[in-house]
Amino acid sequence: MNIDLFIKNVKVYNHSFKKFIQGNVAISAGKFFYIGKKDMNAFEPKEVIDGKGRFMIPGLIDIHLHIESTMVTPSTFSYGIIKNGVTTIVAEPHEMANVFGIRGIQEMIDKSDHCTADILYGIPSSVPATQFETTGGAIDIMEIDELAKNESVACLGEIMDYMDVITKPDCKTNRIVRHVKNNYPHLPIEGHCPKLMDEDLSRFIFAGIDSDHTHQTIEGMEERIRLGMFIEIQEKSMTPEIIQHLVEHDYGEHFCFVTDDVMPDSFVDQGHLNHIVRKAIKMGMKPEDAIYASTVTPAKRMRLYDRGMIAPNKIADFLLVNDIQSLDIDQVFKNGIKVYDYKEKYEQEFQSKQFPADFYESIKLAPLNTEDLNIKAPVNNGNVSCRIMTISDGSTFTKEKIADLQVINSQLDWENSPFCLIGVFERYGINGNKALGLVGGDTIKRGAIATTYSHDNHNLLVVGKNKEDIILAANTVIENQGGYCVVENGKVLSFLKLPVGGILSEEPLEQIAAEMKKLRQAMKGLGYKHYNPIMSFSTQSLPVSPELKITDLGLVKVNESKVVDLFV
Amino acid sequence: MNIDLFIKNVKVYNHSFKKFIQGNVAISAGKFFYIGKKDMNAFEPKEVIDGKGRFMIPGLIDIHLHIESTMVTPSTFSYGIIKNGVTTIVAEPHEMANVFGIRGIQEMIDKSDHCTADILYGIPSSVPATQFETTGGAIDIMEIDELAKNESVACLGEIMDYMDVITKPDCKTNRIVRHVKNNYPHLPIEGHCPKLMDEDLSRFIFAGIDSDHTHQTIEGMEERIRLGMFIEIQEKSMTPEIIQHLVEHDYGEHFCFVTDDVMPDSFVDQGHLNHIVRKAIKMGMKPEDAIYASTVTPAKRMRLYDRGMIAPNKIADFLLVNDIQSLDIDQVFKNGIKVYDYKEKYEQEFQSKQFPADFYESIKLAPLNTEDLNIKAPVNNGNVSCRIMTISDGSTFTKEKIADLQVINSQLDWENSPFCLIGVFERYGINGNKALGLVGGDTIKRGAIATTYSHDNHNLLVVGKNKEDIILAANTVIENQGGYCVVENGKVLSFLKLPVGGILSEEPLEQIAAEMKKLRQAMKGLGYKHYNPIMSFSTQSLPVSPELKITDLGLVKVNESKVVDLFV
Repeated sequence: MNIDLFIKNVKVYNHSFKKFIQGNVAISAGKFFYIGKKDMNAFEPKEVIDGKGRFMIPGLIDIHLHIESTMVTPSTFSYGIIKNGVTTIVAEPHEMANVFGIRGIQEMIDKSDHCTADILYGIPSSVPATQFETTGGAIDIMEIDELAKNESVACLGEIMDYMDVITKPDCKTNRIVRHVKNNYPHLPIEGHCPKLMDEDLSRFIFAGIDSDHTHQTIEGMEERIRLGMFIEIQEKSMTPEIIQHLVEHDYGEHFCFVTDDVMPDSFVDQGHLNHIVRKAIKMGMKPEDAIYASTVTPAKRMRLYDRGMIAPNKIADFLLVNDIQSLDIDQVFKNGIKVYDYKEKYEQEFQSKQFPADFYESIKLAPLNTEDLNIKAPVNNGNVSCRIMTISDGSTFTKEKIADLQVINSQLDWENSPFCLIGVFERYGINGNKALGLVGGDTIKRGAIATTYSHDNHNLLVVGKNKEDIILAANTVIENQGGYCVVENGKVLSFLKLPVGGILSEEPLEQIAAEMKKLRQAMKGLGYKHYNPIMSFSTQSLPVSPELKITDLGLVKVNESKVVDLFV
Repeated sequence: MNIDLFIKNVKVYNHSFKKFIQGNVAISAGKFFYIGKKDMNAFEPKEVIDGKGRFMIPGLIDIHLHIESTMVTPSTFSYGIIKNGVTTIVAEPHEMANVFGIRGIQEMIDKSDHCTADILYGIPSSVPATQFETTGGAIDIMEIDELAKNESVACLGEIMDYMDVITKPDCKTNRIVRHVKNNYPHLPIEGHCPKLMDEDLSRFIFAGIDSDHTHQTIEGMEERIRLGMFIEIQEKSMTPEIIQHLVEHDYGEHFCFVTDDVMPDSFVDQGHLNHIVRKAIKMGMKPEDAIYASTVTPAKRMRLYDRGMIAPNKIADFLLVNDIQSLDIDQVFKNGIKVYDYKEKYEQEFQSKQFPADFYESIKLAPLNTEDLNIKAPVNNGNVSCRIMTISDGSTFTKEKIADLQVINSQLDWENSPFCLIGVFERYGINGNKALGLVGGDTIKRGAIATTYSHDNHNLLVVGKNKEDIILAANTVIENQGGYCVVENGKVLSFLKLPVGGILSEEPLEQIAAEMKKLRQAMKGLGYKHYNPIMSFSTQSLPVSPELKITDLGLVKVNESKVVDLFV
């Protein structure tokens, strides 16, 4: 037996006993071979590491996230997670699928091949998520059959349209779920079912979907676990009550931690899944249990039998940690090979233009002009009642409020109202749709914002107090083939280029993070009040998130599943 | 939603909370749909059962057993387990494979198709288990590739030759395990590794084998669980210490209960996996935990994601039990349909000659005569030292003892010794091998026994105090194409016919059980001292079980892996 690496005298995390056991670990051919008391003389290892005083835990596994939320490529993402101790992920390229269809997914899988981290994929199941938007691509059964052949595919990604699932037996989503159940029974089917309870929840599970990663309440989580669901806890679910409940109950097999969406700047400042684990520990969870929920259960959920624990024949992905409370990572090993060391230089190898040429020419939209921003009113002069999308800090949900605006020569005089114009311009060259509306509340009070990073359809989304600033922001984004632009008084305050499909950048993670911070500051400077203005803004065109949103088809009343007129 | 069956007001076993929750259960299309408080008016069920005062638990799942140990066909076995609440099994047709090779396995799978119980199969991995015996068939990679295509295959069956695995990297077993790991990563690989510890155990697991169903000790079980193994507890492992240890520790995810080998008479008298569960409860395990270990964990181990719990979208296999301590079964449901009711007539549908014609003509052996039982000694007259296979009650292991026997005209005068003759006659018409030896200890003191039910090779095994009785017993078995025969003073005391391959009967289970009891009594009447004389006798030709055994190749010293001479 060739022992390549021997870690002696280290506190090894044991997944069965959920405790650390002092001992030695021998690694052969990228897998754990021996864990016990025998010393190195029994093995003649090629290399020896003294683990004295340190903790050895399995590489972290994140089974629900979207790389696009960090606006980077797979290789950049791998660079970012490895230093944070995350060695395996299951990513769902939902945004790339909305922009490019199956090609977007295939390119993401292809670009993940040579990454250090193991990047597996969930097949986006809800592209588009609704009928109320124009997207660049769609995923149906034919695409799923093609993707299911790929070894990198680990699951069917989150089923978003849960109301359809429980109310329309023959909707597209149910057709897809039934097809996957029947043809790929080994593939887990991931869910998204906020607030569903009792019979509705049973219907959802009965359809074949048995996980949920949305915001959890005590009652909702209890109900889901009772009915056999697996819970994926993301940061917004980590309330003191939820963590306390998990600490007090024996739910170890029924949940794991996930990140879902990590913005570039918080990625750089706080880390990734390790940040969630650290936070759980800080909130009172035993480190042994928090580690279990970020290694053992995610591997089990995704049926990755070859990893997630330090045991013979498992892939030797592991971390050496010098303080278990703060999860302070000394070194990271992938397949038994050191890939990160806090003492050594760790740099991203820069890649540009790694995608096909057309991925950089996806914004098929002429520059905007002032006429594009006129709203014709149903009256010639006087006042008219309008629906106002109303933003409030702390949530991505909006409220509909009604307000009267002045009309001059049958044009809505929105520039002199307390509200901003909000507009969506279809940018795939499919139908040239455009929709205009009004937005108020905690949004900007001056200037303008424009972006092609607008969930899920990623059409051009603009908001502004005056036409000039809106046009400058919009045309800056259009000319640069996508990005995020903030403008005030005819001046660009901040601009993040997103040339890959209008949603990703190939620049270094740290640089994107810096740009992201400037964007936030600029938006706040314009009066935007939100703990995450980027997410708040980008979801104003997301027609699965209540209450009033806007797409290229118009204002959408999400809970009523219909397009409504601006004028009441 | 069509609700076919509604069980109201029943104590439902919840696998997540490991407790019973009073409520109602709705079943649709053979699957659980709803579990909760809503009453029947919400569902308009076709049929309603009042569960008042009763407990509802999932159908029991037994993932390690050999149908041939009960000497019956799959249909008879299904009849037997259903009334005992076992709705899914993973059987390993190791004996049929030794007799008929891949055809034996394929016929067992085929005959299981229309059974009420779900009978899945493990591919026998160790046929033959050693090089020291002649069998009717062999299983190698080609056969495994053929069988792996079959939907009824759930795992690679127990790896028996564990010493080869850890000492001979390129032995047949390791070739097979590597092949299955690489080509069928979704197939669990079942293990058999008595006494292995520390580095040896690590080597075994590193090879890819991560379960063990052999006799457990506290230390051995702790070590296996620590290293990530799954433990399958059979009755002989259910010592007070082991059960106490399982009760005191949180090992719920790491073990299940299995039956392995159940003889026909104990099947009829005690039951099947339900007997094990009942016994565990009697020994102090909480019913909720004992049920978990016979439903949830066996399903997980075999990656049967569609069953093992009462939850939406799981197969509606369940039992209604009126007393949870005694596990007293009222009714059994398979796919939501009642298949057993203690109040109703429950009869086996009798099937005969269900296998191909040659399965009933597998004993290719001419009748024995006295010359076949002569042992030529290395001296003409006087004494000679011989190895004596020595039987002792309580174990299937034998000891080697040395004793002097008289030689008359160069013939060993065994008939006037304190020992019996033991002989094995190859019966497949392959090489006509025969081997003779001597056996003492707790075996018979008069008469003779003969059988073709002799592990694993199932050649003709005879033991007797005199030639006439041996010949009568042997020839009775040969003339009837297999069976188990006990003879005294020229008279057949008991004979169980086993016409299918010399190891199975198509008679009703109860009838086989009655014959089995007569066999035991007859053997005890001849002085056989053993808690299970059938198993003790049938394993005297099993060359993987220490210490001195006999096959058609001669006496085998198991621990030294070599054939030895009768004369020292």
